[in-house]
Amino acid sequence: MNESFNLIGKSLPKVDGLSKATGKAQYTSDISFPGMLYCKLLRSPFGHAKIIGIDYDEVLSQPGVIDIMLGGELTIPFGILPVSEDEHALAIGKVRYVGDPVAAVVAVDEATAEAALALFKVEYEPLPAFLTVEDALLPAAEPIHTYTGKGNIHREIALEFGDVETGFNEADHIREDLFFYSGSTHMCLEEHASVAVPENYGHLTLYTSSQTPHYLHRALAKVLGKPAAHVRVVSPFIGGGFGGKSEPFSHEMVASYLALKTGCPVKITLTREEVFYTHRGRHATLMAVKTGVKRDGTITAMQFTNFLDGGAHGSFGVASSYYTGNLQTTTYKIPNYKTDIVRCFTNKPAAGPKRGHAAPQGRFAIELQLDKLAEDIGISPVEIRKINAIEPNSLTVNYLRVTSCGLLECIERVDRASDFTAKHSALPYGKGVGFAVGAYMCGAGLPIYFNPLDHSQVILKIDRGGGVTLYSGSTDIGQGSLTVHALLVAEILGLQMEDIYLVAADTALTPVDMGSYSSRVTFMSGNAAIQAARQLRDTIAQAVAEKLQVDSQSLVFKEGKVMERNNPDKQIPFSTACALAEARSGLLVGRGGYKPPDLAGPYRGSGVGPSPAYSYSAAVVEVTCDPVTGLVKVEKVWVAHDIGIALNPLNVIGQIEGNVYMGLGDALMEEQTMRRHLLKAPSMLDYKTFTTLDMPPVESILVETAEAEGPFGAKEAGQGPLLPVVPALVNAVYNAVGVRIDEVPVTPEKILKALDDKAKGGSGRYGRKMVPQYKFPKPQRVPRPWDDQPKD
Amino acid sequence: MNESFNLIGKSLPKVDGLSKATGKAQYTSDISFPGMLYCKLLRSPFGHAKIIGIDYDEVLSQPGVIDIMLGGELTIPFGILPVSEDEHALAIGKVRYVGDPVAAVVAVDEATAEAALALFKVEYEPLPAFLTVEDALLPAAEPIHTYTGKGNIHREIALEFGDVETGFNEADHIREDLFFYSGSTHMCLEEHASVAVPENYGHLTLYTSSQTPHYLHRALAKVLGKPAAHVRVVSPFIGGGFGGKSEPFSHEMVASYLALKTGCPVKITLTREEVFYTHRGRHATLMAVKTGVKRDGTITAMQFTNFLDGGAHGSFGVASSYYTGNLQTTTYKIPNYKTDIVRCFTNKPAAGPKRGHAAPQGRFAIELQLDKLAEDIGISPVEIRKINAIEPNSLTVNYLRVTSCGLLECIERVDRASDFTAKHSALPYGKGVGFAVGAYMCGAGLPIYFNPLDHSQVILKIDRGGGVTLYSGSTDIGQGSLTVHALLVAEILGLQMEDIYLVAADTALTPVDMGSYSSRVTFMSGNAAIQAARQLRDTIAQAVAEKLQVDSQSLVFKEGKVMERNNPDKQIPFSTACALAEARSGLLVGRGGYKPPDLAGPYRGSGVGPSPAYSYSAAVVEVTCDPVTGLVKVEKVWVAHDIGIALNPLNVIGQIEGNVYMGLGDALMEEQTMRRHLLKAPSMLDYKTFTTLDMPPVESILVETAEAEGPFGAKEAGQGPLLPVVPALVNAVYNAVGVRIDEVPVTPEKILKALDDKAKGGSGRYGRKMVPQYKFPKPQRVPRPWDDQPKD
Repeated sequence: MNESFNLIGKSLPKVDGLSKATGKAQYTSDISFPGMLYCKLLRSPFGHAKIIGIDYDEVLSQPGVIDIMLGGELTIPFGILPVSEDEHALAIGKVRYVGDPVAAVVAVDEATAEAALALFKVEYEPLPAFLTVEDALLPAAEPIHTYTGKGNIHREIALEFGDVETGFNEADHIREDLFFYSGSTHMCLEEHASVAVPENYGHLTLYTSSQTPHYLHRALAKVLGKPAAHVRVVSPFIGGGFGGKSEPFSHEMVASYLALKTGCPVKITLTREEVFYTHRGRHATLMAVKTGVKRDGTITAMQFTNFLDGGAHGSFGVASSYYTGNLQTTTYKIPNYKTDIVRCFTNKPAAGPKRGHAAPQGRFAIELQLDKLAEDIGISPVEIRKINAIEPNSLTVNYLRVTSCGLLECIERVDRASDFTAKHSALPYGKGVGFAVGAYMCGAGLPIYFNPLDHSQVILKIDRGGGVTLYSGSTDIGQGSLTVHALLVAEILGLQMEDIYLVAADTALTPVDMGSYSSRVTFMSGNAAIQAARQLRDTIAQAVAEKLQVDSQSLVFKEGKVMERNNPDKQIPFSTACALAEARSGLLVGRGGYKPPDLAGPYRGSGVGPSPAYSYSAAVVEVTCDPVTGLVKVEKVWVAHDIGIALNPLNVIGQIEGNVYMGLGDALMEEQTMRRHLLKAPSMLDYKTFTTLDMPPVESILVETAEAEGPFGAKEAGQGPLLPVVPALVNAVYNAVGVRIDEVPVTPEKILKALDDKAKGGSGRYGRKMVPQYKFPKPQRVPRPWDDQPKD
Repeated sequence: MNESFNLIGKSLPKVDGLSKATGKAQYTSDISFPGMLYCKLLRSPFGHAKIIGIDYDEVLSQPGVIDIMLGGELTIPFGILPVSEDEHALAIGKVRYVGDPVAAVVAVDEATAEAALALFKVEYEPLPAFLTVEDALLPAAEPIHTYTGKGNIHREIALEFGDVETGFNEADHIREDLFFYSGSTHMCLEEHASVAVPENYGHLTLYTSSQTPHYLHRALAKVLGKPAAHVRVVSPFIGGGFGGKSEPFSHEMVASYLALKTGCPVKITLTREEVFYTHRGRHATLMAVKTGVKRDGTITAMQFTNFLDGGAHGSFGVASSYYTGNLQTTTYKIPNYKTDIVRCFTNKPAAGPKRGHAAPQGRFAIELQLDKLAEDIGISPVEIRKINAIEPNSLTVNYLRVTSCGLLECIERVDRASDFTAKHSALPYGKGVGFAVGAYMCGAGLPIYFNPLDHSQVILKIDRGGGVTLYSGSTDIGQGSLTVHALLVAEILGLQMEDIYLVAADTALTPVDMGSYSSRVTFMSGNAAIQAARQLRDTIAQAVAEKLQVDSQSLVFKEGKVMERNNPDKQIPFSTACALAEARSGLLVGRGGYKPPDLAGPYRGSGVGPSPAYSYSAAVVEVTCDPVTGLVKVEKVWVAHDIGIALNPLNVIGQIEGNVYMGLGDALMEEQTMRRHLLKAPSMLDYKTFTTLDMPPVESILVETAEAEGPFGAKEAGQGPLLPVVPALVNAVYNAVGVRIDEVPVTPEKILKALDDKAKGGSGRYGRKMVPQYKFPKPQRVPRPWDDQPKD
């Protein structure tokens, strides 16, 4: 087919935009039921302590208090990854971080529940706490968890692809650097909330702000000891996720349990402070990178060591570990690559995925080091990236299949648009530009639990009146995935987006979708929607062809009609066509499913696995840095992003701008740090983040490469464009004032310290100086199939 | 297959019973939305009048009043049958009955809206009103409607099957009688209510207490001038329908229009008085019956003339007319049959279908006359029915295909259980027993608008966790249709009813079902559900057979497992089986559809059409009648009912008892009558109906005939058992005190008048004495294919 598109490529508002703008959208905390009770969690004031006893008599005697719950009431553990199910609804035996939920109370209103918390009498026996990676790596008498059998080591990974020793021998120049990326949090506008409703026959419905209702559905059934078929999970409108709502949480278990225990609907809404405890934000990561290059800049080997501060639970940590170490090869031809990764448990809120998951940390390290390498050997930051840029239809050293790839075009276009090359050597002191690139997955290749089933499924129903209903398990967390579903189906059926009735994120009403994480929804659920829509279009086309006495291949669907391509007078309204098709073929129900090609290779069992495709980005950030105050003002950001095909450019640009905002926050001010056991900044007032007033102009350049496996050629834009922004900003600061800040956030204090150091004749570098002592295992060495062609 | 059933035949509580008993069930009036407005309708105080003008300035000036609406704002007419779309959202130009909606007001609360109604100033010019059938049959200067071209005659039908003249010539004895059945109303506990919600893009959702969301969906789209795809109709829990909520109503149009006009959700709840205006209850019907019999009681011919008082609108009137005249042949072998039917418009609330639709009237007439004929020729009431009882697999004189038929067994079993034959001649004065039979459709053979599509469709989804979701457009109005759906699917998949997640009666979420009327849901939607469930069971069985290495035909589904029939140790849990099947065949979606066999013959275009099957009933009523007060006490009722197969005996018995209750109400006290233009009893205090305190013991006898076309052999129980109850009661009164009351309700006054007449040497009959003067057209005579075999 070579038709022009009806809708694809047009900039269209989101289908849920009006509901959100007018306040019609129902978020979880807007939901209530008659007789609903309110739940609050009592949280640990200790970072690490044994629970000796809990006295709750006074709590239960309070007027308005209905019931309480302790950890012993729900003993089945859970956790997003089957390899680290190390959480309980409420702490059993001990607490692992300040904020760890210890007990719950349910009362007739929230204030009563809140007040009753103070009446619990918990006796703790404090334990030594592990507050840094360095502490956690040491042998521990009482580790935070014992299940890994390695003290506070959650996971260690050591992989070698090719032979780095030979690679370094071939290099003309080698650098070793140490980088640190502070942990940060998602800062969704919507706090986590859940409403659990006990249904007849002991069944349960949970309305909850979750990015992954399917996984939560499985976890809830397991923890509550119920058949999955008796549990329903619904995600209403979500006020932002960014990875922070993509696993089962204790408050969801507690509300569900208490709803069943009391027989009443139970609502829980976390306070902003509690969200800081619950978050699963970006891992603070210390990274040692050693890279060898030829005189022209060609990389010969790279060795990449990562220390992840995991906090108190497994969360997505195993996946995060792989991502930090393994996703960096997607941008450059690195012939020999070795990565060591260790993730530790610490007595802090658990870290997990935040936009970009754990890729931004490694990307930050490598893009800063490339900037230095380029300078070392006297080529431009653009040049070193072009020389090493990975090519379409190739395989990375660590077996990642690259199909479409617009990296080179991204580099060239962002360079041209921003005038980077000229500015880089010409801007006056105090002004600078920085360059960086990035790549990101279009969905994880493997589900988090082993199964051979579809990752995304869609049902499409068309009725005799032309009404189209789409059922998708996917969750729109603000990224616009519902808009994409509507767009794809409307495109194929020749309708408008608002003609598609959307039912989503409801484990009873919709088929399975793995969730909104790893930039998978447009790609995977989009493909499923296309399959379902094409099925029904074909059915309808056959009926119309019979009616009009034409070849069904000659029919096009557009403007709410089915018409002959070259003779548009031969046409039938879509609704009539549906009735004809129903008469011919019965009830019009299409089904679509998508699962990624099996490319897992050495990643099998990691919960990660190679993605079916990668998006590419390049960014330039221009800054003004005041050497007196250390303040950085971002003047402008240019991002060129290989989106495959922009299904809806407005939506893609929105995602790019959101990524820029979030990347600049990480780069300049965000850090979730501790003052010993306590969070330093557990409020929106104290935790500094970018606001609309801080935002610079953003120029988004859409690069299209038409990914063969993508829905109409699309890839992803939800996370990838964040990656180059952080290092480009830091590189720009160097370009402006000549100091290397090898750590984000780049705060004025750090800049001033580095300027001071430089003024005193130092290197002008700010950053960590010591790698923790840790003996990684002998790397698992995988034979190098460098010349293999990617599978189709 | 020769397996024992898992669930079928067991008496199980309804799936929605708990929700209703605990108050969890959300009826339409429980629904509210933020910013919701309240609507009230201004109604005509005149039975027939021109509207000269409406002044609404003062209404709009009231604080809290948001807007008003007049008839001219929605000019597209509607009506349940396409042949008589004679209603408007609000009266245009004239009013046709006291209570006719003239204007609407929408305000911030109901009290404000109610109070504002008094501020409309409407100028009327009264017209001569037509308050009786006799009036309406006369030529009219200003008829109520003009569209039929026949004054106030809505529809006249004259049909002859065989040759009645010859038939009467062959008779040994002929009787002619005149019977009158007063109009009555449904008396649902839930008043009609609607909540209309304006959606984005000008779309609309209407929550409404409707038995027919699909028809309403079509009508709303048409009247509002919107594509059907932009309108969604949802029926929440319904507090009884009985035919009174089975067509589009003006309040639904008005609320919808005002929601779109104001941009706010609009709720309207009719008051009890307004329900009496709106009702569409049983037609008051005058019937002249002439029947010839041989000496042994064999019927030779019957001529049946019907005058239906239709009220102000068409409603289902054309169908009602056919039913009154044409459904009486389903119980008896009548070789020659002629029926004349006329339905008139009168200035009263429109009549339509009430439980049994228009069959109870004709049944009443014929069963009373048979009682008299039996006495005339000296045989017993049981004997005359046995002699004439229709046989299985036969065709009635008027082309109705009879398949399974347990009439004879019903007659014999109810006779035996009640000891009727002995009591009939032996009870003392003041005590009596009456006998009657009946038959009813299992769904209308034709939809109300012509289309070749399924009458019922079901989608079934099974997820990898074993969760089963059923999507059905059908509406559970309390009759238990959702329970039947759950039962059928659970039976086939070896689950429990509560394992099935039910989504129903939502035009966006569910496929099409014609609605809950004509006892069609169990039969038609049940068949669709079975088809969908069997599809998926086969898919699952194949996967399990592969896994267990057995023949898929050897597998049974029970107790939540799939197991080999003769080796139950070979088994797999249902949820695991579903995951295997999904892995093998993709997303598990089944679809089912049912449409009745094409038997329409001479009924094509009538909106009626022969049913695919008929249920049969026989009833005995035992009474004590006090000759001093005229009071009738019902001592006991026996009903034998041919249900085909009782899927859930508890549900069937519930339906039988409900029918007895409603039949006794019609028989003894219910009448919606007028005092000139005004309803006599427009309140629950004034309108007399049966209560639980009046109810006699009921003995239900289930007769099973395993209908080949029925779902697992089932037929219907929602309406059929009402039919014999009314005439059996009246026959019992005769048996008790020797007076014939040829009119229901049989009030004490009528009994006393008849006793008085008898005491004075009269016949002791109470009833109408004159047939209106009306010249019916020459009957359409249809050749008699008496010996034809029914089609399969």
